Amino acid sequence: MLAGKPGLAMPLIGADNLVAGKDPRLIVHAAAPAVFETPAELLAANQITPTSLVFIRNNQQPAEASTIKPLPLAGWKLELSGLVDRPQSLDAQLLSQMEQVEREMVLQCSGNSRSLFAAAAKTKGTQWGRGGMANVRFGGVPLAVLLERLDIKVKPEAKFLTAEGKDEPAKSEQDFEHSIPLDEALAKSIVALRLNGELLPAIHGGPVRLVTPGYFGTMHVKWLTHLRFEPRESDHTSQIPNYRTPREPIKPGAAFTPTYENSEPNWRMKIKCVVLSPSAGAKLPVGELAVSGVAFNDGEAKIESVLVSSDAGRNWQQAKIEVPSSPYAWYRWQVRLNLPAGPAQVWAMAIDALGRAQPLDGAVAWNPQGYTWSGVEKIDLQIG
Amino acid sequence: MLAGKPGLAMPLIGADNLVAGKDPRLIVHAAAPAVFETPAELLAANQITPTSLVFIRNNQQPAEASTIKPLPLAGWKLELSGLVDRPQSLDAQLLSQMEQVEREMVLQCSGNSRSLFAAAAKTKGTQWGRGGMANVRFGGVPLAVLLERLDIKVKPEAKFLTAEGKDEPAKSEQDFEHSIPLDEALAKSIVALRLNGELLPAIHGGPVRLVTPGYFGTMHVKWLTHLRFEPRESDHTSQIPNYRTPREPIKPGAAFTPTYENSEPNWRMKIKCVVLSPSAGAKLPVGELAVSGVAFNDGEAKIESVLVSSDAGRNWQQAKIEVPSSPYAWYRWQVRLNLPAGPAQVWAMAIDALGRAQPLDGAVAWNPQGYTWSGVEKIDLQIG
Repeated sequence: MLAGKPGLAMPLIGADNLVAGKDPRLIVHAAAPAVFETPAELLAANQITPTSLVFIRNNQQPAEASTIKPLPLAGWKLELSGLVDRPQSLDAQLLSQMEQVEREMVLQCSGNSRSLFAAAAKTKGTQWGRGGMANVRFGGVPLAVLLERLDIKVKPEAKFLTAEGKDEPAKSEQDFEHSIPLDEALAKSIVALRLNGELLPAIHGGPVRLVTPGYFGTMHVKWLTHLRFEPRESDHTSQIPNYRTPREPIKPGAAFTPTYENSEPNWRMKIKCVVLSPSAGAKLPVGELAVSGVAFNDGEAKIESVLVSSDAGRNWQQAKIEVPSSPYAWYRWQVRLNLPAGPAQVWAMAIDALGRAQPLDGAVAWNPQGYTWSGVEKIDLQIG
Repeated sequence: MLAGKPGLAMPLIGADNLVAGKDPRLIVHAAAPAVFETPAELLAANQITPTSLVFIRNNQQPAEASTIKPLPLAGWKLELSGLVDRPQSLDAQLLSQMEQVEREMVLQCSGNSRSLFAAAAKTKGTQWGRGGMANVRFGGVPLAVLLERLDIKVKPEAKFLTAEGKDEPAKSEQDFEHSIPLDEALAKSIVALRLNGELLPAIHGGPVRLVTPGYFGTMHVKWLTHLRFEPRESDHTSQIPNYRTPREPIKPGAAFTPTYENSEPNWRMKIKCVVLSPSAGAKLPVGELAVSGVAFNDGEAKIESVLVSSDAGRNWQQAKIEVPSSPYAWYRWQVRLNLPAGPAQVWAMAIDALGRAQPLDGAVAWNPQGYTWSGVEKIDLQIG
């Protein structure tokens, strides 16, 4: 914690000084590896979040990666191995000569909104507010296209894709890697080279990052060096016990030891709705009030309703929704309320075409590491 | 189809004539094996559905089972085998001397509401309305207690419980059986001997039925003779390809060949809300209108909201909910509306504490056999 804690003796070092090109208004949770949060109200202005405003959550950041500039693609090696007929090591430069696609999608840390669990029980890790998320455009080569171009056949015994990055583990820690289901990877993943139309910044995992739209950010492995086709999920700490949640609810505050059976990885994002304006805690005059925000899910079904209530769920009205062109992007929404003078609480909930909504009390999904908060959004306001 | 089709040459034979003790108002979809539906409005009067009104959906009904009376318990054999240390055959009479429990729970055919899929595309099987459901009290011995009393230890390799009934398969058909996850069976299943305080009627699977609260009715295997503890799900036709739904949505009307990977059995019930009064299509005077119904899920989480809309989802109001004493029972709810003269459509949707709601268009879960409908309830009315 460097910024936002004026009581500390340490000087306040802005995000822009820590990582050249980042916006000074970002909240610095940690300097290196960088953990920067976007104040939620700064996300309201744009459908596509400018790169300077995109949050950062790095686990094991290479020394040369503290910049919004890209690292060189030439000479970067990407190895493909495991259950494939022809394992090989590729110069990443070749990727830029293949068919490129672009995916507008939500990028969200699985710890986003973690601080909201605290009302039920403490959780480990950075106490993110609502700003560990962005809506961006990743560009690159679909994994399926890469395999085809390299004439690599994956064996039927392969069920998972494990991605490794060239990161620098802290002493006594394992290197960072993640596994995702192979069928999903073949259908959705891209080997990304670009962010928002520019070469992928080093701080965001450039020059090469594995990106799987609809998945939590942690699964988009940065500084990608190795893709392994395997029969089982990785047993590295980053796959288990970390970045997993209980399959069945546990009591807030309870201990939990994840196994492959009792838990699931932070894969597909849960449906979620966030109020971006007004800010939580705002003091506002009596009169008509525009409330706006974003909603998203894992891209598997259209978001059909964003319902807003100002009387603790007794009545809900449907917000006006802007449907984005990509199923993985966020939906912006807006509603007009007339609130009486006094303290108010605005609730917002998204529902998709599969009938997936949000729990009224997000703590039902409490887990010791505070992953994947998706409770109904509740914003306190002061009117008049 | 015997009743409700006056154009047919066949005489109208009432449910009471076909199965002694059943209410003559039940809709007869088939005589033998009996498939009788309860008109939804008859379910409104009682929290516990009287046995005479409980729907029937039998696949392979023994000849002697066409009665609301029980079959004799003495001499009925129940075999326990497979991955257990001491396989044995039990005289079911012993069950009545063990600790008994009672579970109030929803009993619902997985084909209930199947006819509502027809707007999207035709489905196979009995075209159930909303009345393939009831809320009843099953009594019997918890499976876990039975194993303890018999001093049977299940081996750790056992992952499923497969239940067989003494039914009578049609020629060239396999006997009927179902598998459920063993951990769920040990936590929830009871070997049932009673229904609504009386001995379990033969027509409902007596003298002995496996009942797993929160599961679809088909999994409650009737005329229970055999419990097998196994490493894998059964491969009988009643487990696969029947009684399964696609894991990911398919297009209405599309072909689908279930595999263990691409489909899931009709296990835990989906969250659902049904209007019981007024009846669909009712003509009603202008003025305040009471709308009431029931809602339920798989018992894994409390139902927190039943939301009702009369303007196609633009505004919703929360119904008053009666919380039952059992998590597996249905919740009765009521709301008062003031509808303008003209045609009206009332929507109702339940949401539980896990944030599970219902799709606005239930056809998103379309499957060729029309299982597990759980779309938002939509009732057409004529006002004034």
